[in-house]
Amino acid sequence: MAPAKQRLSKRTYQARAQMLREELVELQVELKKVPFKVLLILAGPEGAGRGALLNTLAEWLDPRGVETFSYHTPTDNELAHPHQWRFWRSLPGIGRIGLYAGSWYTETLREEARSKSALGHIAEEAARIRDFEKLLADNGTLIVKVWLQLSKEAQGRRLRTLRADPATAWRVTDEDWQHHRIYDRLDQTAQLIRASTDRPGAHWTIIDVEDERARDLKVGQLLLTQFRSQQKKIARLNPAKASSVAKPLRPSGLKRLLALPLDQDLSEKDYDALREKWLGRLNQSVRAALTAKRSLVFAFEGWDAAGKGGAIRRLTSALDPRDYSVIPVAKPTDEEKHAHYLWRFWRDIPRDGRMAVFDRSWYGRVLVERVEGFCRVDEWKRAFGEINAFEKEMTDHGTIVLKYWLHVSHEEQLRRFRERESTPHKQHKMTPEDWRNRRQRGAYEIAVGDMLALTDKANAPWHLVPADNKRFARLEVLRSASRQIEAALEL
Amino acid sequence: MAPAKQRLSKRTYQARAQMLREELVELQVELKKVPFKVLLILAGPEGAGRGALLNTLAEWLDPRGVETFSYHTPTDNELAHPHQWRFWRSLPGIGRIGLYAGSWYTETLREEARSKSALGHIAEEAARIRDFEKLLADNGTLIVKVWLQLSKEAQGRRLRTLRADPATAWRVTDEDWQHHRIYDRLDQTAQLIRASTDRPGAHWTIIDVEDERARDLKVGQLLLTQFRSQQKKIARLNPAKASSVAKPLRPSGLKRLLALPLDQDLSEKDYDALREKWLGRLNQSVRAALTAKRSLVFAFEGWDAAGKGGAIRRLTSALDPRDYSVIPVAKPTDEEKHAHYLWRFWRDIPRDGRMAVFDRSWYGRVLVERVEGFCRVDEWKRAFGEINAFEKEMTDHGTIVLKYWLHVSHEEQLRRFRERESTPHKQHKMTPEDWRNRRQRGAYEIAVGDMLALTDKANAPWHLVPADNKRFARLEVLRSASRQIEAALEL
Repeated sequence: MAPAKQRLSKRTYQARAQMLREELVELQVELKKVPFKVLLILAGPEGAGRGALLNTLAEWLDPRGVETFSYHTPTDNELAHPHQWRFWRSLPGIGRIGLYAGSWYTETLREEARSKSALGHIAEEAARIRDFEKLLADNGTLIVKVWLQLSKEAQGRRLRTLRADPATAWRVTDEDWQHHRIYDRLDQTAQLIRASTDRPGAHWTIIDVEDERARDLKVGQLLLTQFRSQQKKIARLNPAKASSVAKPLRPSGLKRLLALPLDQDLSEKDYDALREKWLGRLNQSVRAALTAKRSLVFAFEGWDAAGKGGAIRRLTSALDPRDYSVIPVAKPTDEEKHAHYLWRFWRDIPRDGRMAVFDRSWYGRVLVERVEGFCRVDEWKRAFGEINAFEKEMTDHGTIVLKYWLHVSHEEQLRRFRERESTPHKQHKMTPEDWRNRRQRGAYEIAVGDMLALTDKANAPWHLVPADNKRFARLEVLRSASRQIEAALEL
Repeated sequence: MAPAKQRLSKRTYQARAQMLREELVELQVELKKVPFKVLLILAGPEGAGRGALLNTLAEWLDPRGVETFSYHTPTDNELAHPHQWRFWRSLPGIGRIGLYAGSWYTETLREEARSKSALGHIAEEAARIRDFEKLLADNGTLIVKVWLQLSKEAQGRRLRTLRADPATAWRVTDEDWQHHRIYDRLDQTAQLIRASTDRPGAHWTIIDVEDERARDLKVGQLLLTQFRSQQKKIARLNPAKASSVAKPLRPSGLKRLLALPLDQDLSEKDYDALREKWLGRLNQSVRAALTAKRSLVFAFEGWDAAGKGGAIRRLTSALDPRDYSVIPVAKPTDEEKHAHYLWRFWRDIPRDGRMAVFDRSWYGRVLVERVEGFCRVDEWKRAFGEINAFEKEMTDHGTIVLKYWLHVSHEEQLRRFRERESTPHKQHKMTPEDWRNRRQRGAYEIAVGDMLALTDKANAPWHLVPADNKRFARLEVLRSASRQIEAALEL
């Protein structure tokens, strides 16, 4: 048995801790000004002292700037959403440190302790975690992952010491002893998870916990060091810059957009006759989907005045108001601006058996944010892949994702703008921004083209809807939605 | 059979609708400036056209200023929280209109249609709704409740017309026919609910829906009229004013506070010996409660520097970090400021099997808000009853509510303030506000006294903890928490 290492004296600890506390409080003040979030993830075997470490950090840090998260096995509500939903819900707010006491890692290990059969599952879980952490890190989030390392011998010593004293014996649970018995197997699994989730922007740091005082100081110091280096890294990034839409990434999309015929005709009489028929068919397919506990997500995009609102109202007029919600996507609030751009959409993803209609969507990242330079070039270029992954999370879960681009000609848009300006109850719909967007038509066409080329996937296809004729467009939305839902349900 | 009434011509309708739309859009602009929320609740029998009316309103109003809510039968997650939790979660944000398509009323009627046995339940449900609506109305919320009235004959005509046309037959469900058959019984129940929930600030308006055009205009007009009258009413209210703490409402509370002995002694050695024992006992009782799917809510209040943070850290050091969350209550954010003062606390109420520790709480309403004049006198006076009702909602559900006032003497507080100011890593804890609060000691004592006298209830008792000796205070929290939880579980 290895001899216990030299321990830090209480006096040295207190002196160092005091300096560290001052620096950590300073960090928290600065954190309110920097444009990134901090996640501190604590993982490790039972008895490694996550609880005690958490308490030390709670004492050192200003509690108003800390949010603590942990995960149990998923609740019914969490199971009724795509897998990543619960992680997205537990991200710290602006200027706060997220402290992950029991993280996705800890839960995975607990599961492993319960049954050996979980290895295949673990590789899959690790891949999901890797993608999630990459997405956050790419967005500038600082992820500090600490593995609290405790040898089998030290774990045994600690458990026996606690058990020997009647006053502390309650601290040792049956689960602790069980984990101690299968220490080697759990340690191997942990190595496997760490190896497959140790990535740039989300590295693991292994900290030996035998000396509790040294452990606390090391974790505090690690947080400080990584915070400082992230500050420097972020400062070096080029700021966002506009007019970055010089040419399409994939010309095929733009070609497809411009080739769309817009001269459809549909008389009011024909529309009236067909509308009820297709409303009925949509009603049936949506009801079938919801009854089967599938969820539905509609995303509506299109030119200003293309008729998104009207199309959505026709669509929902066939449905029970309790089953769906319409989410108008306006400019992000301050809270949303500081979060990952997908965060606000994750928040509104419906549970199984419900439907959500987004009036504008996450595609803002590759449309307005790209054209107006609200994000950096590397950010919107990365977004195509991130959005595909986001939609795949949904469709893997069973959600049916329907995406619409409502296309009007430059001439028809002008006619509608003028009509709005001359109708008193429509004037509030027109802003100078609409006219500014209109002058950028060429840049937007390139952005829309790339969006169509890079995010039109079999699991989440785009419907390109000619909308110069409003009646035709509304009917087309009903028709294509019914068909896509029926196909998804194999009706 | 009564003859169909004279219907509004399309032309008259369009002219009136256009004027109404202009006024409604104007209302929405003003709504962003007024300090109150608007709830528009639509209820009525099947076929009364809630869906169609909803669509008209969605077309008339700016969708970015509307949130639509409806209620299904409660989900597992909703059932794992106190009854009112789901209503609190679905209140509109700042400057928005909440449109309740399927409200608590509709669900109650659907239930009634399924079984006749629900009448006793309905009286109870109505009482809850009445209290909830009163609380919101007292806070200035405008509640517009519309009952869409449709006679049995008109309902029958409407259903038969829809069924006769193959294109619209899908609009009529089996449930519609069933509701039609038991029209009279449902109508009686609806009358009963309306009668017991028709209160000042939450009146019902019955609107005949046989003429759909007139129906839409009437609802729009009603919303406008009531909005204008609420604007006037709110403008007449006296603004909040400070120094309203002249004397106690109930002197017994102040007497109890001032009589508390603060000279307890507890050596470090004795504390160390007792702490582990009581931590163990607390750990067991909390685990027993959570395993029994009870939830726990701790509220910590006390003088500045009374040691709330330290007491909370000792308390949680005995627990699994996955089981609890600590919620530091800071000054309200803009969003919280515009909401009912209880809203932010409802948000963090734990689900069954979990525990929440509030570091400061909803008692801020009768402490800092009273003393500093952040709310009106009638508001903080009403708050005692509202808070008792809030806690009763929790304890009725099975939540164990534990409340702590940590009491330090004026002298000991001064000593701690000075120590904080002279310790670098504690300086951030001191603000000019702390000194200002300190000078108001007398006013706060009166407020604390009233709080103790008026909210110390058997279901949610106050623990008054002498805290000049930190060790004694921490131990006392552990002891009294263990005992209260054991008593609640009848251990």
